[in-house]
Amino acid sequence: MDIPYYNKTKMDCKGLRGRLFYAKMTSNMRGKDSDRFMKKEQLLLTKLIQYGKTDMYPMHMPGHKRETEHSVLKDFPNPFTIDITEIEGFDNLHHPEDILKASMEWAAQVYGADHTYYLVNGSSCGILSAVCGATVSGGRILISRNCHKSVYHGVILNQLKVNYVYPQIIPELGIQGGISRESVEKALEEWQDVQAVLIVSPTYDGVVSKIREIAEAVHERGIPLIVDEAHGAHFSFGEDRGTGRDFPKSALECGADVVIQSLHKTLPSLTQTAVLHVKGERVNRHKLERYLQMFQSSSPSYVFMAGIEQCIFEMAEHGRENLRAFSARLELLRSELRSMRNLKLLDHVEGRWNVYDLDRSKIVVSCRNCLIKNEDGSVEAMDGNRLSSWLRDVFHLEMEMCGSDYVVAILTCLDSEEGLKRLLQALMEIDAALVSASLSDRAQEPVWEWELPRIRMKMAQAMEQDAVNMRLEECAGKVSAEFIYLYPPGIPIVAPGEEVTETIIEKVLTYRRMGLPVQGMEDPNAEYLMVLRGI
Amino acid sequence: MDIPYYNKTKMDCKGLRGRLFYAKMTSNMRGKDSDRFMKKEQLLLTKLIQYGKTDMYPMHMPGHKRETEHSVLKDFPNPFTIDITEIEGFDNLHHPEDILKASMEWAAQVYGADHTYYLVNGSSCGILSAVCGATVSGGRILISRNCHKSVYHGVILNQLKVNYVYPQIIPELGIQGGISRESVEKALEEWQDVQAVLIVSPTYDGVVSKIREIAEAVHERGIPLIVDEAHGAHFSFGEDRGTGRDFPKSALECGADVVIQSLHKTLPSLTQTAVLHVKGERVNRHKLERYLQMFQSSSPSYVFMAGIEQCIFEMAEHGRENLRAFSARLELLRSELRSMRNLKLLDHVEGRWNVYDLDRSKIVVSCRNCLIKNEDGSVEAMDGNRLSSWLRDVFHLEMEMCGSDYVVAILTCLDSEEGLKRLLQALMEIDAALVSASLSDRAQEPVWEWELPRIRMKMAQAMEQDAVNMRLEECAGKVSAEFIYLYPPGIPIVAPGEEVTETIIEKVLTYRRMGLPVQGMEDPNAEYLMVLRGI
Repeated sequence: MDIPYYNKTKMDCKGLRGRLFYAKMTSNMRGKDSDRFMKKEQLLLTKLIQYGKTDMYPMHMPGHKRETEHSVLKDFPNPFTIDITEIEGFDNLHHPEDILKASMEWAAQVYGADHTYYLVNGSSCGILSAVCGATVSGGRILISRNCHKSVYHGVILNQLKVNYVYPQIIPELGIQGGISRESVEKALEEWQDVQAVLIVSPTYDGVVSKIREIAEAVHERGIPLIVDEAHGAHFSFGEDRGTGRDFPKSALECGADVVIQSLHKTLPSLTQTAVLHVKGERVNRHKLERYLQMFQSSSPSYVFMAGIEQCIFEMAEHGRENLRAFSARLELLRSELRSMRNLKLLDHVEGRWNVYDLDRSKIVVSCRNCLIKNEDGSVEAMDGNRLSSWLRDVFHLEMEMCGSDYVVAILTCLDSEEGLKRLLQALMEIDAALVSASLSDRAQEPVWEWELPRIRMKMAQAMEQDAVNMRLEECAGKVSAEFIYLYPPGIPIVAPGEEVTETIIEKVLTYRRMGLPVQGMEDPNAEYLMVLRGI
Repeated sequence: MDIPYYNKTKMDCKGLRGRLFYAKMTSNMRGKDSDRFMKKEQLLLTKLIQYGKTDMYPMHMPGHKRETEHSVLKDFPNPFTIDITEIEGFDNLHHPEDILKASMEWAAQVYGADHTYYLVNGSSCGILSAVCGATVSGGRILISRNCHKSVYHGVILNQLKVNYVYPQIIPELGIQGGISRESVEKALEEWQDVQAVLIVSPTYDGVVSKIREIAEAVHERGIPLIVDEAHGAHFSFGEDRGTGRDFPKSALECGADVVIQSLHKTLPSLTQTAVLHVKGERVNRHKLERYLQMFQSSSPSYVFMAGIEQCIFEMAEHGRENLRAFSARLELLRSELRSMRNLKLLDHVEGRWNVYDLDRSKIVVSCRNCLIKNEDGSVEAMDGNRLSSWLRDVFHLEMEMCGSDYVVAILTCLDSEEGLKRLLQALMEIDAALVSASLSDRAQEPVWEWELPRIRMKMAQAMEQDAVNMRLEECAGKVSAEFIYLYPPGIPIVAPGEEVTETIIEKVLTYRRMGLPVQGMEDPNAEYLMVLRGI
């Protein structure tokens, strides 16, 4: 297999193992700058420019992939030359009356929304605004437990009571599945004072819930459904074809009331740009707008706004054809990846996963049950971290995310043929260097049970109270002042205000022993937990 | 007087009046786009690029003035080429451990802060974080009534009780002066449960309060002083010279605990970039950081972060000398402007204004009591709006702000000699076309009395309650659900939760009759006010 990008490496060392050694040896050439004095060559700007000149290929967001041959990128001017403020003729994002108003009205038409808002503080500010705008302070919201942290931030800021629906689990890969209509219905039946429902779809891994069914269930209660579609901005430009849809339908088309999309994650737009769509009257638009004004800079960037509009224009003009071609390239890649013998691709199985759909542009590759065979015949377990490092160090492919036993690549319609080819070659080569574990070799996997801890008080309340650091082993019966989660998947095992139990402690200790990434606690070693004093 | 920029205009029409006519005639060539279909030439990006090629000169922020000859701007790459996400080697703004941590520690050293944070959502997010981070939910804060709206947003989000100190007034110009130590002391004596004090300094007009005195008074109570220094980011790079300081000292140097500075307003940085500095232990840094994570995108822009660092680097390397030269240019400009016979420059008068200092880079020009003499000998009152239009339409100078009877130009060390010359020539020419009103000609000026309305409930509470629209004339005794203010100066006449009185109604009606910009109400005509139902 010819990999033309690492000739220097190949000259010195033959084979994957040799190249691994070489990569390790040279990796500390990057270095850190803890110097107290800054030199020009140490500036972030210098490093970013240098990095852009390497052959590192982005299998991650932003979706424009620094593909400077594309007209959206190529013709973009020096940002300083178009960086203005709210002067005559250029309107005001927070009180649009002129060209920004016309632009957002045009965008709403493109998307089939009643109103579309340009966001210069990422999906985060859209989610905060949706949560605060659709509930009253101190009210109740139902969210999927696998929501992005900005949802939890909204819950805290608006002092909400919160209930959860849990995603199903895809057991072979240990990743989250979709949210079912039934779980939403059950929760709404139990908690009659819920004011809004918010779920994330697609997930980071590309799992898409059946929004139409969920929206129906939510609307039966007369309340709004908010969908965090940060990872699905390209869905709006997919299409139905003879063989089915190339990409899932957007939540907006499926009846959601408020939909938030990150433009930068999967489309050619600058990082930190997003849109929020509103359809129908279930959310008070004036209240929502009040929060959008609060959570976004009063000096919004015209560079970002121009980039947002340009991105939507590009997709409105060429999106469908580009996604069609992209979809064909993806299908080719996936069909090749299906032949991997040890690594496993998250893929669609007909009639199997009827609760969710998949966004095929997320390439999720699991190394669960894969072993590395050493020269002396001994074996070592492969893990996500190592898979990601190999891809980076040997193949110069930077992944979007690495889990305990999987990696995620985000592909977009701006990925080059060459980029896809490099990914394929790298994965095939790594796959060939692995063996599958026999049943007896398999390490014990974490059991993915969702156990809802008892909620003792509102999150906002717990975060305001006096807290002390305590050894995790001693925390049973205490109320946590912090989050604990494994990242990924990033689902809180405990949230602030919830009661810590023996089972939870056991679970976290097990994760820690397995070297899994326990996060959320102020203690970087995850040995101490902040719990409320005297409770 | 030769003004080389408008030759075409000059060919057709002689003199200021003729050029005014010509400017008016051609102004609708700009046009609006309310079309439902977007064409490439209608894109915001296209318009921004076109605008950058005109000879319109920015007397407004951003402080980089699109001065592409300056190295900071000239060498900046296509933003897409450096727009990445949190990948290996590039750290994470929300949990900095590597190059961003080192960079912010270096920046703190440059500023003499204990901690400096880079902000990608403008000063707004820094102010929200400071307000929420320095108080407990439902607590009490003392703020200056002339604060930016983001301060009010913070008060609402953290459900705070609020008390006010009022700035003094500069009566000749009708603009706000400084905050006095005495007013702060008095308020703190009256409200013993205040948890933090926040004031804005400099104001939009460049008026700087005596921070050191105020900080002493605040610290005597053991609570922190937060200063919104959004308009004074250049202060940190000023210096003492034989003849005194070129620019006022930064609030950080004067003992403030938290200081927020907009880099883009007065320094060469992209719009929406800012820094927050912390000194001392009066504000819990972990709590503050928690809010910074909430109010900023979880996908912060590397383009912005690189721009922030580059700007600070530039100022650390060359700031002092550049500001020294800029200060000399400013002094020259100001000495010429002092000779205006009708227009009046906001200027320093020795021994007179002992409560505040002035930032001389803000050129505030008042046309109060100026008249335009028509050809038939009749006179018309001049106003800020007209002054601003003349400067724009005839002289192609875009001002930062226009008040009822004054305009503000923001000058920075990136302004060209030519730019300053154009401003001088334009103002001198306009001045020559005006006459001063005799006492009998003077229109009645609004009386700038601060009358604190009775606070009936917390702002957050008033904004959540059921409200109805009522004719302003009928609102006496009602509790407002909205802000009412004149913009500028933007000081609320009434805030949500405050009681509307006959005096207030009379004041607002008078302002409206005078054609002054009454804002804040949902009704664009300011005839109806949202008031709480049944109270």
